Amino acid sequence: MTTFSFLDDYSEGAHPDILRALAQTNLAQQAPYGDDAYSADAASRIKAHLGAAFEGAIHFVASGTMANIVSISSCLRPHEAVIAVSSGHIVVREAGAIEATGHKLILVPAVDGKITPENIEEALETNSHFPHMARPRLIYLSNATETGTVYTLAELRSISALARRRGLILFLDGARLGAALASHRNDATLADIASLVDLFWIGGTKVGALLGEAIVVCNPALAEDFPFHLKQRGGMLAKGRLLGIQFRELFGDGNLFSVMARHANAMAARLAAGIASGGYGFAAATETNQVFPIFPNAVVAALQKDFAFYVWGRPDEKHSVIRLVTSWATAEDQVDAFLSRLATD
Amino acid sequence: MTTFSFLDDYSEGAHPDILRALAQTNLAQQAPYGDDAYSADAASRIKAHLGAAFEGAIHFVASGTMANIVSISSCLRPHEAVIAVSSGHIVVREAGAIEATGHKLILVPAVDGKITPENIEEALETNSHFPHMARPRLIYLSNATETGTVYTLAELRSISALARRRGLILFLDGARLGAALASHRNDATLADIASLVDLFWIGGTKVGALLGEAIVVCNPALAEDFPFHLKQRGGMLAKGRLLGIQFRELFGDGNLFSVMARHANAMAARLAAGIASGGYGFAAATETNQVFPIFPNAVVAALQKDFAFYVWGRPDEKHSVIRLVTSWATAEDQVDAFLSRLATD
Amino acid sequence: MTTFSFLDDYSEGAHPDILRALAQTNLAQQAPYGDDAYSADAASRIKAHLGAAFEGAIHFVASGTMANIVSISSCLRPHEAVIAVSSGHIVVREAGAIEATGHKLILVPAVDGKITPENIEEALETNSHFPHMARPRLIYLSNATETGTVYTLAELRSISALARRRGLILFLDGARLGAALASHRNDATLADIASLVDLFWIGGTKVGALLGEAIVVCNPALAEDFPFHLKQRGGMLAKGRLLGIQFRELFGDGNLFSVMARHANAMAARLAAGIASGGYGFAAATETNQVFPIFPNAVVAALQKDFAFYVWGRPDEKHSVIRLVTSWATAEDQVDAFLSRLATD
Amino acid sequence: MTTFSFLDDYSEGAHPDILRALAQTNLAQQAPYGDDAYSADAASRIKAHLGAAFEGAIHFVASGTMANIVSISSCLRPHEAVIAVSSGHIVVREAGAIEATGHKLILVPAVDGKITPENIEEALETNSHFPHMARPRLIYLSNATETGTVYTLAELRSISALARRRGLILFLDGARLGAALASHRNDATLADIASLVDLFWIGGTKVGALLGEAIVVCNPALAEDFPFHLKQRGGMLAKGRLLGIQFRELFGDGNLFSVMARHANAMAARLAAGIASGGYGFAAATETNQVFPIFPNAVVAALQKDFAFYVWGRPDEKHSVIRLVTSWATAEDQVDAFLSRLATD
Repeated sequence: MTTFSFLDDYSEGAHPDILRALAQTNLAQQAPYGDDAYSADAASRIKAHLGAAFEGAIHFVASGTMANIVSISSCLRPHEAVIAVSSGHIVVREAGAIEATGHKLILVPAVDGKITPENIEEALETNSHFPHMARPRLIYLSNATETGTVYTLAELRSISALARRRGLILFLDGARLGAALASHRNDATLADIASLVDLFWIGGTKVGALLGEAIVVCNPALAEDFPFHLKQRGGMLAKGRLLGIQFRELFGDGNLFSVMARHANAMAARLAAGIASGGYGFAAATETNQVFPIFPNAVVAALQKDFAFYVWGRPDEKHSVIRLVTSWATAEDQVDAFLSRLATD
Repeated sequence: MTTFSFLDDYSEGAHPDILRALAQTNLAQQAPYGDDAYSADAASRIKAHLGAAFEGAIHFVASGTMANIVSISSCLRPHEAVIAVSSGHIVVREAGAIEATGHKLILVPAVDGKITPENIEEALETNSHFPHMARPRLIYLSNATETGTVYTLAELRSISALARRRGLILFLDGARLGAALASHRNDATLADIASLVDLFWIGGTKVGALLGEAIVVCNPALAEDFPFHLKQRGGMLAKGRLLGIQFRELFGDGNLFSVMARHANAMAARLAAGIASGGYGFAAATETNQVFPIFPNAVVAALQKDFAFYVWGRPDEKHSVIRLVTSWATAEDQVDAFLSRLATD
Repeated sequence: MTTFSFLDDYSEGAHPDILRALAQTNLAQQAPYGDDAYSADAASRIKAHLGAAFEGAIHFVASGTMANIVSISSCLRPHEAVIAVSSGHIVVREAGAIEATGHKLILVPAVDGKITPENIEEALETNSHFPHMARPRLIYLSNATETGTVYTLAELRSISALARRRGLILFLDGARLGAALASHRNDATLADIASLVDLFWIGGTKVGALLGEAIVVCNPALAEDFPFHLKQRGGMLAKGRLLGIQFRELFGDGNLFSVMARHANAMAARLAAGIASGGYGFAAATETNQVFPIFPNAVVAALQKDFAFYVWGRPDEKHSVIRLVTSWATAEDQVDAFLSRLATD
Repeated sequence: MTTFSFLDDYSEGAHPDILRALAQTNLAQQAPYGDDAYSADAASRIKAHLGAAFEGAIHFVASGTMANIVSISSCLRPHEAVIAVSSGHIVVREAGAIEATGHKLILVPAVDGKITPENIEEALETNSHFPHMARPRLIYLSNATETGTVYTLAELRSISALARRRGLILFLDGARLGAALASHRNDATLADIASLVDLFWIGGTKVGALLGEAIVVCNPALAEDFPFHLKQRGGMLAKGRLLGIQFRELFGDGNLFSVMARHANAMAARLAAGIASGGYGFAAATETNQVFPIFPNAVVAALQKDFAFYVWGRPDEKHSVIRLVTSWATAEDQVDAFLSRLATD
């Protein structure tokens, strides 16, 4: 690509420390299928963030869709359904992966990208005709959301309280959990999340690993048979070490997980500030590493000569919303180049 | 592990050239989900081995179970079943992954680890009660087989001819296809295989990649919607480059794919020759990188002090069959250490 | 029940002619699984209504949900999705039956209970991100709709034309097709429908059979393996004669199918006329055998003493929409009793 | 058919008392989906046979394959498998229906048509490689078996004890449970069975109903959500009364269930005795309503002129095993006609 890409946060490889760790461990013989020493160590390091009460299990998989498939299908019986916002990743970007495991998705409208207790209650109410309607059983949410917004601790607590009151399983898709935790809007910790949800996952791919997501099964009852599901869905790697080594680095002394997420968010904030100072508006608040400015179409066309990004919507005939995504690898000078280019249009 | 492991061919990381390639390409921005330049290049290099007539597609996935899930479920309708030997990997080592996609497995006994035209014909005959029996539609075979044996070209041709005559899809699981092609018993090329089967996959994980299998969809009709299935089953990596880079190395100038497979086979042959010269017998011929010697139980116990391996069976009360697996990373001195230890028992 | 029920159109058994036919044929030995002479005869009689061009197949199943399961799952591949209105029976009244076969439902808003070409186009547009979104492949519609409305021939033609232009399968759920065809709003024939859709079913249960729905597979390509799907989903009865005998009566000389549907519609029209003359309004037009009047809550409470019916909605605090359903067995004097009771409230 | 059929026990309609009951109840308005008074009464009558300890639930479905689908899929999680004999109905006669719900079948050889504790133990042993093998969880058995043999109470007790010891679910397919209970070899009661298994079903179709099987969910934990599964798989009839009315007759004062089964068995015994007195042997003991005589091929050909039956096997070139099935409707004079014809060959 001759243009610089703000298309997504997975255009580059991995943080150099991760590659270095792969090289250093390369010839050590290890047990397969996640039973290696590196995966055990990575799990320990993550558990150190989860609070003393944590009694669950941690497993590593190769992709976010796999994390969602295994997490959801492992804890539902055939007649149980998932409640999700209609913009949810499992709803619109995973090719029907959840339905392919047999489960219905019950859709509710998003509010700032988020699911709300009110929406969930409404879904329970309108899906209560026993036995003619699939039973709503699992709440799916993403943090950060598809539009880059972040749940506050109070929001998570109220959804969790509702879930427990109504016997629902609460599941958090953390493809961009690093960005969420690093957000200026965030006031939740990993330990908070672990105490509030039944299972969640910590995205590695989008934060700067080669690949890999860490599924944290908080509810011990759900953890028991989890490896069967990993294996059955094709989510267990023979060389599970590859995932363990990376998460050992992400949660190691260098604290790469936070460092990289903060960098990505900082680059997004810099973009947003520069764009705002140019007098442009936004379709969504910039809370993490995604920026949704609104530009005249002519500006968009001009920017496209040097930069790659998605056109996200058309608020009116003369304007477009574009999506700019930053990553651990986004260099400040590319951000500044974008802003310079914008200033000259 | 303080013992040296002959447990499997995935105890180590990857060939150093692969790690080097990952480092060299690390910061180049690339399109995601397999649309990167490295994956395209890797596919081209593989295609160069497939013959001019090849009109299919090549896709990369993270694990062998995933390769089997996507390959099989993408080409069957709900009422169609798979014929496989009862020792097949999909039958006994994938936690019901194929049935989880809705398809019946029809089992036939293996002959030297292999499926045969006679067995297939028998399965067709005994599963023909329309519409009360699922229709046999896809033949599953592994090369090398679970016991390390190799199909001859004549065997593959006769199975392929039968498949075409009876309207069956022929699918080859190539988790250890490298070892098979490098076998002294082999007389088939990748181009032969591509011309005889509908789809197959080339294992990277067990030949010396960090992870990755290349699915070769030979039949253009099956290739058309293949990416949907990859995505739906969680088999599409955001950073697909990780798989492309590795297969570019495996099929690059260094011809790592063959070099590593030949090394593994040579180490197995060295083990087998040494064991045979000690007067011991074998439960199966050593055709690839797996050796199945028969030892007195006391010998097994002694060997276990220094070496790790699986006890594969108990032919009688006093003897055991063990399985020794070699890999691209098995050092000759470890083989010799094993043989020395054996000689002193 | 001491009250008279307008709850649904399946509160009674079957038309006496059907019971008589069962008795008359009872001891004749017949081939099982739908290969009996009565089923063949019933299929012939139905085919006589389908036009000379019909080259498909007809199968009988026990329930509407089964008809939907088999029809939809038999013609979709795993990555293919269904477009349906959000009030569709498969969406809200079949406990996730379609998702349980692995397929996503893409929901569009209903217009007068109906799906429209505009809605379908919109669904295609917003679900086109290959391969991240399941491919929209089958259009599901019900005639009569869930709210008792009827598609005009022009509407069906325009949906069919769109389906063919875009390579979509068109499927019509005919649980109340009898009522639709007998509607004063209807201008389509069974032959029209057979020429416009790929498959549809003719409901027997709700028109006056003991049970049974006739699936008409119009597209010969879809018909080929259909019996496998019937068997696999549990939809094939050993004594398939039970279904054949009933449809032979429905489409026999007495033309029970039409007679019973016309009676049900007439009773609904009589209810609607009486209610309208009392000055009450309706939430939906009365086109078939369902009436949706709006009453003050006090009136509803009074009616509930003598009649059973569902409260369908609450337009405001003081009013309710109720649903009254008539059937082949609804006696005119019960309708008049209802209207008298209403007049005295 | 101009020949008399011994092909199966579902060639005729239903016992006249059943048709009479349908006529008598025809116009009474009833709640749908199994909540009618007749179904409740039928369930009560069945419960009267199940012992005072019974705390489960009873549901009626239209077909045996449906009974198996709902029973098995409702109580297994995705990674759990079924153990069955390789001749089991779900294995070879239901078009892959169980696998279509996602579950693996683990096959063991039958002994006199039956599963044994030894076979089950062996299956547990060879399927214990966690998490690479699906977990054996449910034992499937049929009584009577596919070859007409009957489990003794001692056999059922020992399988049940094993199931409880190993945490397995025990499920009994009772398509021909009437014939089994009426067998001279039987020493178990319905109450025994209800106390030993987790769920089972009582076949109506093959004993003389128009259609219908009664699923008895003995384990209260499995009963809780059962209606969801019935609905989701298409197994719930709008006019559930049709099934309730029939089972009310089967288990009513006339005790039709036993009367019809005893008649069928008596006709089979009469056939077997006559055949044996002709000096012919049998491929299986005649314990219920199926007879498996071995005849010279010429005798088979002669019999086929007047009688229909299946040729079941070819023990050698000159002989065939045929299967003769009797039913509630088999007239003694047809049995005698068969024996006369045999005597003259």
